[in-house]
Amino acid sequence: MSGDNGVRVSVVGLGMMGSALAGAYLRAGHPTTVWNRSASRADPLVEQGARRADTIADAVAASDLLVVCVVDYRALYEIFEPVREALDGKTIVNLTSGVPEDARGAARWAQSLRASYLDGCLLTVPPAVGLPQTLLFYGGPAEVFDTYESTLKVLGGNSVLLGADPGVASLYDLSLLGILWSSLAGALHGFAMLTAEGVPAAALTPFVGSWITHVVLPSITGAARQVDAGRYATDISTVGLNAAGLAKLVEASRGQGIRPDVMVPIRDMLRERAGSGHGDEALASMIEVIRRPRAAAS
Amino acid sequence: MSGDNGVRVSVVGLGMMGSALAGAYLRAGHPTTVWNRSASRADPLVEQGARRADTIADAVAASDLLVVCVVDYRALYEIFEPVREALDGKTIVNLTSGVPEDARGAARWAQSLRASYLDGCLLTVPPAVGLPQTLLFYGGPAEVFDTYESTLKVLGGNSVLLGADPGVASLYDLSLLGILWSSLAGALHGFAMLTAEGVPAAALTPFVGSWITHVVLPSITGAARQVDAGRYATDISTVGLNAAGLAKLVEASRGQGIRPDVMVPIRDMLRERAGSGHGDEALASMIEVIRRPRAAAS
Repeated sequence: MSGDNGVRVSVVGLGMMGSALAGAYLRAGHPTTVWNRSASRADPLVEQGARRADTIADAVAASDLLVVCVVDYRALYEIFEPVREALDGKTIVNLTSGVPEDARGAARWAQSLRASYLDGCLLTVPPAVGLPQTLLFYGGPAEVFDTYESTLKVLGGNSVLLGADPGVASLYDLSLLGILWSSLAGALHGFAMLTAEGVPAAALTPFVGSWITHVVLPSITGAARQVDAGRYATDISTVGLNAAGLAKLVEASRGQGIRPDVMVPIRDMLRERAGSGHGDEALASMIEVIRRPRAAAS
Repeated sequence: MSGDNGVRVSVVGLGMMGSALAGAYLRAGHPTTVWNRSASRADPLVEQGARRADTIADAVAASDLLVVCVVDYRALYEIFEPVREALDGKTIVNLTSGVPEDARGAARWAQSLRASYLDGCLLTVPPAVGLPQTLLFYGGPAEVFDTYESTLKVLGGNSVLLGADPGVASLYDLSLLGILWSSLAGALHGFAMLTAEGVPAAALTPFVGSWITHVVLPSITGAARQVDAGRYATDISTVGLNAAGLAKLVEASRGQGIRPDVMVPIRDMLRERAGSGHGDEALASMIEVIRRPRAAAS
């Protein structure tokens, strides 16, 4: 996985993730300049062949492509504002995590400085940076993505431009992270129930893979189709039936003395949907409750 | 998938699921008697060759094996108490959904009547009853399961006796259902965020399969190992980092005017864990918060 290895890259921000990014460029043979607010974070990378920038101005001058991974968007501005004139004509690829509005604000800021801007999200952990299957989302102008595509793919072979909206990468990223967090929270709830009865959590493992592949995943992709169609017909698994099932789960959890917090809002939103006359619809129709803030709910 | 086709079966309760159970026995060639409180539910099955029991006593007399799928455990007692003497020596396979304590109570009741008892859970929808991959969990005496194993597998090839505790099937069932509900709720939350920005829900579909297979599933199985070991070490994805990520997700949702209810308790439990000095642990350590009811939390 190496692109045009002649492209010079400056990596700004050398936390765990930033260091992994710089490491991937070094392994791929790119001339790589590194900078971090606390300079010592650069030491291991310099040992691997990176050039140390003594100042942020130095890092900006060294490369046309600036790959940025800092703690938040405020840090982005703090770091680059002092050298704003030097950003004219540069390309900033910002992999700092944030929300869609952060990304859109940064894109406007970059435009005001005549810098090109892509906002990206790494859907992985530092050790998986640079692998062929590693997924990165980008939002921004196609011509900028196309110019640097092979260089961007050094960070992960599955690098995808989702659209021109700079906020779109964060939007997809938060959506997938939400699935991870909610799934894992649900699993931990189940593990708490099992272990409360003396059953090890790992006793569920032989069943989880098939359950997730054959039940959970088709439910999610089927729900996406129903949401886009705005039609929630089902012969099988209704809002009312699942609300009753969730009530049983909450009751059983309370009976064991464990906190049902993960499950209660799901039960309540299904009940709310059933209570407004939609109890015979498919589970996916719960989205109509999520979409409507409580104050505005009829 | 047919066992000893000579085994006579009475199916009691002919809702959508009960009818599917009886249909599977008819297709497999078992002499099948059916009964339902509203007798007309039996008509389609009688057309397929089932014998109609005019009374519950008739259904009990017809077969040594009684497969029961009724609306709840109260219905089980209401239906069978009037013929309690006739249950002596029968085997009740109860696929009614409930909580572990329901199952344990029913097992004690059956024992008092000198009936054998298995409590089972169907992890599927009616159209998938009878398929080789269909999963059913059972709890109860191994000798009862072994006696009828091939007959039970007519309902689903993947029929598993989990243990002697009659509540164990419901316990595993609720754990897997909790994963389904939480995952789907998380996905619907993401779909609400995407569609709020004009992105169709199905735009996420190409990424969901790989995300669930390569990220979510390993996170769940890894968490099971950590929970059983009681050790939550991580170099990568800490409670603190994920609490911050969830706060971003909640903030972004609120900014879009959608309800963050699914995500708020997960954020709050991670914050609670971080606040008690465990911010550097792995996400799996959230189970310690779930295990501890709020009132008892230190």
